[in-house]
Amino acid sequence: MTPDPTAGHPSAQLDEVVHQRARLGILVVLAEAGTAEFTYLATRLGLTNGNLNRHLAVLEAAGLVEVDKRFEGRRPKTWLSMTPAGRGALRREVATLRAIVDGVALP
Amino acid sequence: MTPDPTAGHPSAQLDEVVHQRARLGILVVLAEAGTAEFTYLATRLGLTNGNLNRHLAVLEAAGLVEVDKRFEGRRPKTWLSMTPAGRGALRREVATLRAIVDGVALP
Repeated sequence: MTPDPTAGHPSAQLDEVVHQRARLGILVVLAEAGTAEFTYLATRLGLTNGNLNRHLAVLEAAGLVEVDKRFEGRRPKTWLSMTPAGRGALRREVATLRAIVDGVALP
Repeated sequence: MTPDPTAGHPSAQLDEVVHQRARLGILVVLAEAGTAEFTYLATRLGLTNGNLNRHLAVLEAAGLVEVDKRFEGRRPKTWLSMTPAGRGALRREVATLRAIVDGVALP
């Protein structure tokens, strides 16, 4: 059976703000950790500091992640946490990914 | 339990050549359709011709998709199909996506 082409494909519903590899990783780790420190995130995701900073800026601008810079003693530390909007966006991404992978037919 | 940060996160294994929204859609549709005509793909994925062309060029350069231009009567038609390497790349992407979504804890 040929699918109706006008029905659209679930991949068209993916949002690159959330779908992009590093940003998806950031949101997934924050969903499990609640709050995470910058250095932990960078190590966990195998990202350079510059790369992580760049992706956090995109997520912060979209209102999906909150950035909290604090001093602990003399050392500045950056804490990241997910906003309710971030949680909703990740939930939608995961639902769409499930629809995509469940539909893949690979002999 | 805090995960071992040096163990890496599955998102680090995603390959942007395959993971990018439109290219993932192209490969998934080709996996189900075997071979697809350019216009069908564009409609199915909600992509402009220019956008689809750009992403097909990336997939073709990576050896994941084969492009076959033929005339049918006087009309040129472009047929796309997935190579064995494309099939393998999609299989890896789907396995990694499953590992990611199965690990997402959203209250």
